[in-house]
Amino acid sequence: MRVILPAGTTETALIDGISAAGAAPDLMEHTPSADVEILEYGRPTAAPVTPVSPTGCPTPAAITRAVREVVGFDLVVVDAGLAQPTNAATVDLGIEPGNDIREAEAVPDAAAIYDRAHGFGASLPDEEVVIGETVPGGTTTALGVVTALGESAGVSSSLPDNPIERKQQVVDEALAASDLEKGDCADEPLSAIQAAGDPVQPTVAGIAAGALESGAEVTLAGGTQMVAVAAVLRHAGIDAPLSIATTSFVADGQDDLEETCEHLNCALTVTDPGFDRRDHCAMERYCAGEAKEGVAMGGALSLVPDGRMDEVRDRVETVCARLGIDDDGVIDGAP
Amino acid sequence: MRVILPAGTTETALIDGISAAGAAPDLMEHTPSADVEILEYGRPTAAPVTPVSPTGCPTPAAITRAVREVVGFDLVVVDAGLAQPTNAATVDLGIEPGNDIREAEAVPDAAAIYDRAHGFGASLPDEEVVIGETVPGGTTTALGVVTALGESAGVSSSLPDNPIERKQQVVDEALAASDLEKGDCADEPLSAIQAAGDPVQPTVAGIAAGALESGAEVTLAGGTQMVAVAAVLRHAGIDAPLSIATTSFVADGQDDLEETCEHLNCALTVTDPGFDRRDHCAMERYCAGEAKEGVAMGGALSLVPDGRMDEVRDRVETVCARLGIDDDGVIDGAP
Repeated sequence: MRVILPAGTTETALIDGISAAGAAPDLMEHTPSADVEILEYGRPTAAPVTPVSPTGCPTPAAITRAVREVVGFDLVVVDAGLAQPTNAATVDLGIEPGNDIREAEAVPDAAAIYDRAHGFGASLPDEEVVIGETVPGGTTTALGVVTALGESAGVSSSLPDNPIERKQQVVDEALAASDLEKGDCADEPLSAIQAAGDPVQPTVAGIAAGALESGAEVTLAGGTQMVAVAAVLRHAGIDAPLSIATTSFVADGQDDLEETCEHLNCALTVTDPGFDRRDHCAMERYCAGEAKEGVAMGGALSLVPDGRMDEVRDRVETVCARLGIDDDGVIDGAP
Repeated sequence: MRVILPAGTTETALIDGISAAGAAPDLMEHTPSADVEILEYGRPTAAPVTPVSPTGCPTPAAITRAVREVVGFDLVVVDAGLAQPTNAATVDLGIEPGNDIREAEAVPDAAAIYDRAHGFGASLPDEEVVIGETVPGGTTTALGVVTALGESAGVSSSLPDNPIERKQQVVDEALAASDLEKGDCADEPLSAIQAAGDPVQPTVAGIAAGALESGAEVTLAGGTQMVAVAAVLRHAGIDAPLSIATTSFVADGQDDLEETCEHLNCALTVTDPGFDRRDHCAMERYCAGEAKEGVAMGGALSLVPDGRMDEVRDRVETVCARLGIDDDGVIDGAP
């Protein structure tokens, strides 16, 4: 079992009120670089930021890392448009950060990215892969893509109060800037990404398509953003079996998730990590609807064998302590 | 425990009669890219070559991978001047392939590479690191560096008959091209690398120095090449404890290894994988003195707990089968 993590950025994240992935705009573009360092090393090592919300909610990378410390899965990070350096090892597919989707082209080379990612996915020897993502602003670009495809999927948020109207407005502007209306890209999913997506989407979709072609079982680890990728794959005519694995935090907040997955012919796995059993700030924040998902969290949680989730919760406390977050959420700064 | 593997190239490897790392010169520069794919995925995935000698001796990467499949260590590959793409994830420190040491400068930016590698090594959270290398031609550049430092260490070879006179001749030309005589770089080890080394050396040395500074225990995994790195560190005034872990194949062929390690104040661990107990071409070739060491093989073998080496030998057979090498050494081509 290998977890593959495309990590990238889009200038869309810098639009006011879009993302909670990082406290300040100038630090946000470091978030995916920090996330992959947390997965690889257990804490940020070169990234100058520890992604923790002002209320003490750590990045989902902390949860995925905790699962990794318990379960021990292989990890491969793919640079899907990082804007800032990282000390984590990354696969280089020559992918650049994405533009603000309100520009004419959000991902000018979406088709070329898809092709290279497809080659990478097809080359993997694994029988099962779990593919996640980390890209601030990713739920907005997900909304952009599903809208351009003519699908109507609900959209989650890393903020407890989802700024859905703001996202819808940005997506409307994005489609207008590309001279598109809802559904115009129904048969051209890479055009949908080119117009209103982010570079992580064609990376995840390409790796998934390549891995499927080579006979692997593919699980897309995430909520809203993986629904968008599944839609891209289905609109590309790929009808192989696909699974989506996400957290209860996404599923609880999105009534139509099951229906959407059924419509896209995707199996859905929802894992509840039982964070309500702990009196710890980080886990409380997830229960309150912050962060919810990301950095392959739902997929990682789905790998935890029965009876070992308590060990994961213990480990979440350990990882949080390492990140400077204690029971009360006091942030001491990274050690 | 983390194994760190700087992987790079030097045009020195293309000099006639220097290296066995790859059957043909035009394929040899793919060897380190293939090696790191074998470590990461169990077989080459994008590299167009499986490094196996004409007699059926597989790259040491196959042995290190076999250990990894038994012991399960974390791996981080550092791009220390790869000339060809790889599908393995690599840490990017902006390092270019090295020049032929007979040119005036073999590694023009040796000091800058050392500094960046030092920063990376110092950032690691690990208490113990094992640092290996894969660079065709690396024993010749090792001889270049120890000579420039004024040390007299024996030099091993991936060939059963070590072309030591040829190497010495190349090193003599290298020093002459840089206007140096033996020992001229005694207090300037990075100048020794700049004149007659390869880009993997300042990467390994820098990571080791950084990790030592942050309090980690450092093991240099290799033979001749790690003796050269240890000499670089000692000549740089670093007197922290250092270990070298290599294979019995290197130690058996090099009488002065123990003495050299003592002189450099390095602990020496030699591991015999017991390949003579198996009737398998790959293991027989190692017993006959081919390949000997490389790709962190000696360091990986030192991690095998007592009583589990038989499992490693089983796994070597599995990995070899995957690489198309059976008991008789028939090469079927990569699957």
